[in-house]
Amino acid sequence: MRRTILLITIAFASGMLISSMVIGQQSQMKKWQKGKGWGWVWGKEDEVGALNEMTDASRLAALRLADHGKTYDLGVRYDRTSFKWPGHSPGEIISFRTPEGVKRQQDPPQIVNNNASGTAWHSAALFISDNVGTQIDGLAHATEGDDDHWYNGFKEKDWGGNWGPRKADASTIPPIVARGVVIDIAGAKGVDALPSNYIITVDDIEVALRKQKTQLKPGDVVLIRTGAMRYWGETGSDHVKIAAHDSAGISVETAKWLVEQNGAVMICSDTSGVEYQPNPEDARAFREKYRSFMPLHNYLLIEQGIHIGEFHYLEDLARDRVYEFCYVACTNKIKGTAAGFTLRPIAIR
Amino acid sequence: MRRTILLITIAFASGMLISSMVIGQQSQMKKWQKGKGWGWVWGKEDEVGALNEMTDASRLAALRLADHGKTYDLGVRYDRTSFKWPGHSPGEIISFRTPEGVKRQQDPPQIVNNNASGTAWHSAALFISDNVGTQIDGLAHATEGDDDHWYNGFKEKDWGGNWGPRKADASTIPPIVARGVVIDIAGAKGVDALPSNYIITVDDIEVALRKQKTQLKPGDVVLIRTGAMRYWGETGSDHVKIAAHDSAGISVETAKWLVEQNGAVMICSDTSGVEYQPNPEDARAFREKYRSFMPLHNYLLIEQGIHIGEFHYLEDLARDRVYEFCYVACTNKIKGTAAGFTLRPIAIR
Amino acid sequence: MRRTILLITIAFASGMLISSMVIGQQSQMKKWQKGKGWGWVWGKEDEVGALNEMTDASRLAALRLADHGKTYDLGVRYDRTSFKWPGHSPGEIISFRTPEGVKRQQDPPQIVNNNASGTAWHSAALFISDNVGTQIDGLAHATEGDDDHWYNGFKEKDWGGNWGPRKADASTIPPIVARGVVIDIAGAKGVDALPSNYIITVDDIEVALRKQKTQLKPGDVVLIRTGAMRYWGETGSDHVKIAAHDSAGISVETAKWLVEQNGAVMICSDTSGVEYQPNPEDARAFREKYRSFMPLHNYLLIEQGIHIGEFHYLEDLARDRVYEFCYVACTNKIKGTAAGFTLRPIAIR
Amino acid sequence: MRRTILLITIAFASGMLISSMVIGQQSQMKKWQKGKGWGWVWGKEDEVGALNEMTDASRLAALRLADHGKTYDLGVRYDRTSFKWPGHSPGEIISFRTPEGVKRQQDPPQIVNNNASGTAWHSAALFISDNVGTQIDGLAHATEGDDDHWYNGFKEKDWGGNWGPRKADASTIPPIVARGVVIDIAGAKGVDALPSNYIITVDDIEVALRKQKTQLKPGDVVLIRTGAMRYWGETGSDHVKIAAHDSAGISVETAKWLVEQNGAVMICSDTSGVEYQPNPEDARAFREKYRSFMPLHNYLLIEQGIHIGEFHYLEDLARDRVYEFCYVACTNKIKGTAAGFTLRPIAIR
Repeated sequence: MRRTILLITIAFASGMLISSMVIGQQSQMKKWQKGKGWGWVWGKEDEVGALNEMTDASRLAALRLADHGKTYDLGVRYDRTSFKWPGHSPGEIISFRTPEGVKRQQDPPQIVNNNASGTAWHSAALFISDNVGTQIDGLAHATEGDDDHWYNGFKEKDWGGNWGPRKADASTIPPIVARGVVIDIAGAKGVDALPSNYIITVDDIEVALRKQKTQLKPGDVVLIRTGAMRYWGETGSDHVKIAAHDSAGISVETAKWLVEQNGAVMICSDTSGVEYQPNPEDARAFREKYRSFMPLHNYLLIEQGIHIGEFHYLEDLARDRVYEFCYVACTNKIKGTAAGFTLRPIAIR
Repeated sequence: MRRTILLITIAFASGMLISSMVIGQQSQMKKWQKGKGWGWVWGKEDEVGALNEMTDASRLAALRLADHGKTYDLGVRYDRTSFKWPGHSPGEIISFRTPEGVKRQQDPPQIVNNNASGTAWHSAALFISDNVGTQIDGLAHATEGDDDHWYNGFKEKDWGGNWGPRKADASTIPPIVARGVVIDIAGAKGVDALPSNYIITVDDIEVALRKQKTQLKPGDVVLIRTGAMRYWGETGSDHVKIAAHDSAGISVETAKWLVEQNGAVMICSDTSGVEYQPNPEDARAFREKYRSFMPLHNYLLIEQGIHIGEFHYLEDLARDRVYEFCYVACTNKIKGTAAGFTLRPIAIR
Repeated sequence: MRRTILLITIAFASGMLISSMVIGQQSQMKKWQKGKGWGWVWGKEDEVGALNEMTDASRLAALRLADHGKTYDLGVRYDRTSFKWPGHSPGEIISFRTPEGVKRQQDPPQIVNNNASGTAWHSAALFISDNVGTQIDGLAHATEGDDDHWYNGFKEKDWGGNWGPRKADASTIPPIVARGVVIDIAGAKGVDALPSNYIITVDDIEVALRKQKTQLKPGDVVLIRTGAMRYWGETGSDHVKIAAHDSAGISVETAKWLVEQNGAVMICSDTSGVEYQPNPEDARAFREKYRSFMPLHNYLLIEQGIHIGEFHYLEDLARDRVYEFCYVACTNKIKGTAAGFTLRPIAIR
Repeated sequence: MRRTILLITIAFASGMLISSMVIGQQSQMKKWQKGKGWGWVWGKEDEVGALNEMTDASRLAALRLADHGKTYDLGVRYDRTSFKWPGHSPGEIISFRTPEGVKRQQDPPQIVNNNASGTAWHSAALFISDNVGTQIDGLAHATEGDDDHWYNGFKEKDWGGNWGPRKADASTIPPIVARGVVIDIAGAKGVDALPSNYIITVDDIEVALRKQKTQLKPGDVVLIRTGAMRYWGETGSDHVKIAAHDSAGISVETAKWLVEQNGAVMICSDTSGVEYQPNPEDARAFREKYRSFMPLHNYLLIEQGIHIGEFHYLEDLARDRVYEFCYVACTNKIKGTAAGFTLRPIAIR
């Protein structure tokens, strides 16, 4: 009875409608436990992880945040010159067929005959890494242990292969439609971009959230802004400038707070790795403390089953002070890829 | 009972909102002219075409069609075995780094040292065509004339290049958020999939729309279902079966009706080319009539500036009789590509 | 006149030297044992195998077989259409830079400026397998056992990697200069090419050698002609015809006779695998007998350290009845490749 | 005794034959004219150029220079780290199939069944430029003029294509067997390697030839040693060191002297471009004088039809003071490539 009255009130004002759903959302989390997060809780065959929390209701609530219909493109443009981690394979986008080439080769002949309009086409052949441009790391990206296992205990000896991991590859990442929240650390600090090797702490986040007047809610896609992507330019070719900011990021402790206290289902940033990277002098101590060169990846991808979004372009959102929106991202559906790459996630408000 | 009343109230309020927007949408078309469509009407530098019609209002109206929060994944999974047009380059997804490889090579050394957790990673190197899997053809894909021009008069001698066309490449396709309408021709005809070389006429479409009780509106993304994708299976490896249905499609006349009478801003199907392809015996007469081997592409991409969506998986929508929804698609942001590839557009209702 | 006398003196000296070496060749084999061949006899770190038998003397003797200066090109031309084993990756040779592309892109700018002659260039990017065209299998190509070891006991867990095997890759194959002997089985049988699945026996070889009046000597590169390459044409695009003959080859027993009784340091043929391949009905029995799907590869590459030459074009040699010559082959010097590919070995007589 | 007499007779005959050929070589040049060289003298369809001068006699004479049977490997080992001109596409050699991958994927199934020996294999997929490692530039590599023509007047509009030039590609380079002469400029000057941007003059060459006591003859493959390759190391990964010497080379005037006065049929060096490259301050004046950024390429490849050999490793020859030998090189037989790449030419003495 009270519920009905409440609903009528909601129906009256759509703002209320949204908040009730959001309020409901928390209690509707399927497996999340405050203080613990998730872990391998989705069944032995699960390849999806925390994104399993998405439901029709959560998606609908997220969509309802879009009350203007304005979209923000969070992808950066990629080409052969783009900044990337040097350990990934290089990239070329090469004209495979061109109008002149098709006509000169008269190939394929059955196509080029009886063609009074002189029709032809462009196509490209790509040699490209699955870890470039705007990315979402799949749950098979990071491994650990002598048995080289990844999320949910999938082991290399069972599920490795020559054509990519055969469990939890990026083609298993479902379309993501969720409430997105930008936490603008650079903005809160009044800098263009955070300096090299800056560690973003829980305190930094709380300060920024207060300034923004934003609240985190379980089920959120959280996007941390360092400001590094303001140097991407057209295609990320100024490697020196980008590298100078790319190592700022959250610590494992900050990630734990986001996940275990706040229920983030995905964590993104505008850097290549989301996580803080130490400078060379601090690297040894860092690794001895965390036992890994990328402990945030171990924690999020392997332990918690949480996808990581990298190189997300957050400049337009920050400029417009849009901190809360509907986040939509779909990775390419390519079997064997370890990550979604050169993506164009969108924020809709 | 009270619940029913309540729902009516909600429906009334929200219905008004939606319909007013939809009504408004038509009159808000910026450049479309009934009986003519678009053409090169967006300015000399335009690389976007009919998708310029999208506005905050049109996107908001489309988003409001999503009243359940349910998403349908319209992408097909791609791998090296997937059906594609033989004129496109082949594809391989190859493990580039694997946990075992990283550890055996001890490479890069600075990464692998002080790594008590035995952390490593998977990444893949891809050699891939920009015309495979679920695709959206960019406006530079098709060319015609002795000057090999494409949409808006961009000419090869000016805007060609070795690394893809330098105008209207796929990285210029904006995020697409629009009302999507499936027209289920196979369903209306009561067949699993249309036969080879079937020409979908305006009449076929009108019959299907009546059966579905769906109306087209200017600004729509129209998706034609032939049923061919029911044979895709896991990765499209049964080429014979797929090929047996892939040649069914709409004629140029049908496309003109969709565009010039109904204002479709994008046309998609569940085949590799959307358009009807004649069998070998009819090919000569077809080409002499239309002066091209792919006249629909000439008409839509070059003349009208309308993107084409290919290999869209429509089986789940048809099964659930979901004919109207919010269509969202974002192509990869790779400079020089002629098409968005291996995409995962979604339908949200 | 004085010149003539001098030449006689030189000729006398060099003539003596040559003939003594040729006569001595057999006795100079370093490690070969009649009835046994080689095995892992070259030291723990050896990556070369039986080709270690080559010496200055053996090379000089081989070179002296070239008494006409005529060269035969034993390589077949490769392109994207060429016949290959379907388990290898496909190939594309793509224009990477072209004069028109360079000029349209004005890239790289520092190159294209002050260029009154309008100079530009062609280059290609290749995506290619290391197992296509005329090949020489490196000693790391075949592996066996639970430990996946190859020649000389190199194990995957020690010497595998992401960028190819790190021991006995094709870059370790020395330049090969040796006496080459064609054994023309098709010619001896009076057929254009041997039929599918034909097993070449020791008896077949002895008959052919007698007809040819050729004798084998320890240290020889032996080339078995089935005639299959007469169907290669320009680039090996008639897969059906080539496949119809490609399965003829020598048995393991024949290989043993060539190696253990005759001291062949390398065995080549004009097929993709040199060895007999059974038809599907016989495959099971074959594998149960030999415990492998390619027992000749196990025997030659792994056990004996003998390189295998595939797709060698022997038609011109057969036509001219040239059975004995100087064989010269150099594989590409690319670290990590498992085989030399698209080679052009030569026979010089 | 009779044997000895016979050998003397043979020796006498062959000695005579050899010397007469060597002496006669000059007069036997087919088209070369002193003071002019060649030009487009080999017929309208010719794709071979000056290498047409090779005959059985010239090859035999070259082979007779090999009187020790010792081979020198002139190729440098290439991998992903190797120095190359940045305008060429990058390279990766990637494990395509590995024993563990084959077994884990159980793919292809027909291969892996009934395999008691646990046999598997390594193969690699390569993404590679045709302009890396030890190279021989094909005659289609360089173009000039508004019509973008190359050697023999082949024009881009006629013979260009998407898959490489269709005339005078590297697959048309015949097997090269010729007298090779190293001119050790660094040795003559007593330096490890020539400094940056050093111009090798005719005088430098004459001094070096005198010191070496070597004479050039028409039909020679001439190899100029700058010493740069002493810094190649295992795979050419020290780019700074190599680049510091890579710009030394011969001038166009020196090339003309080699070709027009001395009849060189091919010119090689141990740098990436053979020709002198100016430092940035001198680049403008250089280009205004020569009207090209690579005038030696224009002269040799386009005007004279002379192939250029790059990154030839000459250190061992220089150390052993071997200045005259039999040069043998065979490029890969891949249709559409602009150059032979990652080669392993050999010098046999």
